[in-house]
Amino acid sequence: MFIKEVLKQPEMFSGQQVKFKGWVSNVRGNTKVKFIEINDGSTVLNLQCVLKNDNYDLAIVDNLGIGSSVEITGLFVSTPDKQQKAEVSVEKIEILSLVKLDEYPIQNKEISVEVLRQMPHLRHRTRLFKSIMILRSALFFEINNFFQSEGFINFSAPILTSNDGEGAGETFIVDDEKGGFFNKKTTLGVTGQLHAESYALGFQKVYTFAPTFRAEKSNTKKHAAEFWMVEPEVAFFNLNDIIDLGEKMLKTSIVNVISKHNSEFDFLEKYTGINLRKRLIDFTKNQIEKVNYEDALKILREHKDQFENQDLDFGADLKTEHERFLAEQVFKAPVAITNYPKDIKAFYMHQNDDGRTVAAFDLLVPGIGELIGGSQREVRYEKLEQRINELGMNQEDLQWYLDLRKFGNAGSAGFGLGFERLVMYVTGIDNIRDVIPYPRTNKTVLM
Amino acid sequence: MFIKEVLKQPEMFSGQQVKFKGWVSNVRGNTKVKFIEINDGSTVLNLQCVLKNDNYDLAIVDNLGIGSSVEITGLFVSTPDKQQKAEVSVEKIEILSLVKLDEYPIQNKEISVEVLRQMPHLRHRTRLFKSIMILRSALFFEINNFFQSEGFINFSAPILTSNDGEGAGETFIVDDEKGGFFNKKTTLGVTGQLHAESYALGFQKVYTFAPTFRAEKSNTKKHAAEFWMVEPEVAFFNLNDIIDLGEKMLKTSIVNVISKHNSEFDFLEKYTGINLRKRLIDFTKNQIEKVNYEDALKILREHKDQFENQDLDFGADLKTEHERFLAEQVFKAPVAITNYPKDIKAFYMHQNDDGRTVAAFDLLVPGIGELIGGSQREVRYEKLEQRINELGMNQEDLQWYLDLRKFGNAGSAGFGLGFERLVMYVTGIDNIRDVIPYPRTNKTVLM
Repeated sequence: MFIKEVLKQPEMFSGQQVKFKGWVSNVRGNTKVKFIEINDGSTVLNLQCVLKNDNYDLAIVDNLGIGSSVEITGLFVSTPDKQQKAEVSVEKIEILSLVKLDEYPIQNKEISVEVLRQMPHLRHRTRLFKSIMILRSALFFEINNFFQSEGFINFSAPILTSNDGEGAGETFIVDDEKGGFFNKKTTLGVTGQLHAESYALGFQKVYTFAPTFRAEKSNTKKHAAEFWMVEPEVAFFNLNDIIDLGEKMLKTSIVNVISKHNSEFDFLEKYTGINLRKRLIDFTKNQIEKVNYEDALKILREHKDQFENQDLDFGADLKTEHERFLAEQVFKAPVAITNYPKDIKAFYMHQNDDGRTVAAFDLLVPGIGELIGGSQREVRYEKLEQRINELGMNQEDLQWYLDLRKFGNAGSAGFGLGFERLVMYVTGIDNIRDVIPYPRTNKTVLM
Repeated sequence: MFIKEVLKQPEMFSGQQVKFKGWVSNVRGNTKVKFIEINDGSTVLNLQCVLKNDNYDLAIVDNLGIGSSVEITGLFVSTPDKQQKAEVSVEKIEILSLVKLDEYPIQNKEISVEVLRQMPHLRHRTRLFKSIMILRSALFFEINNFFQSEGFINFSAPILTSNDGEGAGETFIVDDEKGGFFNKKTTLGVTGQLHAESYALGFQKVYTFAPTFRAEKSNTKKHAAEFWMVEPEVAFFNLNDIIDLGEKMLKTSIVNVISKHNSEFDFLEKYTGINLRKRLIDFTKNQIEKVNYEDALKILREHKDQFENQDLDFGADLKTEHERFLAEQVFKAPVAITNYPKDIKAFYMHQNDDGRTVAAFDLLVPGIGELIGGSQREVRYEKLEQRINELGMNQEDLQWYLDLRKFGNAGSAGFGLGFERLVMYVTGIDNIRDVIPYPRTNKTVLM
């Protein structure tokens, strides 16, 4: 029996005998009555358990500190008129593992997220991190459910690879203790895309959901060395098709998460001061606008004075300030910017007829900037080979990938969703370190 | 529209106009009629498409080689009396990407799995690997569905870590190009368990499903350097509870996969010569037996002459030959061996009162040997600390993990399922290199 179930419809369970295991999150009261709040991990909500001295010698809970685990048996009572929706009139309390008063490192007082980051093994037991991690898990499930229902094959791209899929050079090197485990320099994958393209040829619709790694030293709020990516790849899709897929995936997942997690949103809306559900529901109700990169530049140039970075000529790589401005001030909603200059995008993107842009898109969302980046892939062998050589990449390492163009490749398109960025967008939390259980950046104290 | 749908109930779609995109897997016929088999990736089954010269100048398919991608429009006809259940009378064929005759590297002739292993970017387009990868994906979905419906939180354990969770020492080292990215020696995780334990305290039921890494040079059929693990961890669970959870997870996933993938099992049963579905259904119908390690030794000693490795005294680590003998010859079904000697198991396992065994289990299955390994965790701080020191492990690195015992830990239990081993068990394929898209061993040519 879980607290989430009984608090969902307290009137249905009222008068029933219940039993819960969980952790103490607060104890208050006097010599006649004690109120113990317990949480069992199924919801951010605590269940209030009432002990009276006519049933119990209350001395047994005198030393019961926050963090202790207990088993509570008692009568569940719906209390629609009180602040909390229900409570348990305790008949039996068993202390399973005692934490003495004040011994638990996170007491019920204001404690900053920065301090909590030093305790990744405990911070999920606060209401803030409990809410975030419940929503993270819910999004994980909904994204998998979406692809499952759309007939996709889940595909495991290799993490150990010799291909730097993005050509960005920020890779981690891997070897065993002695060195020379593999036959060539081996890195941790920065994307599963190249391999996913091979599986889209044959399976049509595939996706990966896996950790990815970038040895980025930039100490920003939205970069980490280890993060999870969702990467669908679909044969026969073009740029428009893949933007539409991303939109459908986001909307379906978000609608389902909202419908199942009101308590966590209640908490996070209060915490962040953002009306998260309104923002998300507005997003799901409107179609995402698609705006050409060059048109986006025009808009940005009209507000040039508002930006630190004022390079807004063709070829400029949009910075987070520009991306957020477009999503927050101009469109006031997620917006897909399309057809970026070839020179600022990866080698594998479909080269448009204008000779200077590629069929790429970035989906920008309020509060985050880039949430999704994707493209239609270059299917013409010669064009792709030429681009690989122009960029000085090692053609031999990529020959297998080039060869895919010879074997029935009529085009494919895909995107990468930074999963933590989605969790940030949905929860309103502005630092990537707070939406992944054990964040890794180059400043991290590993544990 | 997908081939899987129409072939599921051909009589329902008979007489309808259909349109499919897919890849050519065979072309035969004469100047009057051509039979083109196409596959769209939704099923192992091909759809036979018939072109007649009264509709078409058949010369356009003269050069159509295996691997080409096409779009077929035509009339779908159920053909219950023919070898294939249905066919399409083609009205229009569009060649989306031509592969000329004999240019595709995998022609319709006997080609060994060893040769196919050199083409991981193409081999999934054979019926064998298509079946395997469809079932792999189906198992991925069913396992996630199971944990979702049981109220588990999906948890992302860090891959980059300084903890060698198994203490086996076979870890990969990670750093950036320059060296010194992190503040201490960093390895790729061999398990997510230690971190999952921290999340089980607070969420009660958590699991990971993620890649794991071991720098094992042993060149066996069941080891790889990179593989996926499913690791549930449940607070308040003991050894018996966690074995039961593993049993329920396997049975639920397997029953669902069988019900949805008859065509792939048809193919694999013919290919392997094993009645896979019978074996699997028998497993789901019987309760897993739990046998003490010492009782298992007694049984094995009675058949000592059948083993290469004859060390079967207390303390012996069972080898694959012993494991398979127990599952295949003695129990003729999956069997859980429990309470192994402390000295051959990892440091974190609950120490039994006999002072020499731990509350561990291995689930052995026919054809594979160990499929799952798990245990009840040691929750007593002093016992765990003593074991860490006995084994010469670095206590400082594990202090956060030890500390979990101070903060409301009334015990937890969990297991690790090697996902590829499950795919091997379900598909009857005996080499791990053939059940993961891009296998990595120390002999791998990386791509």
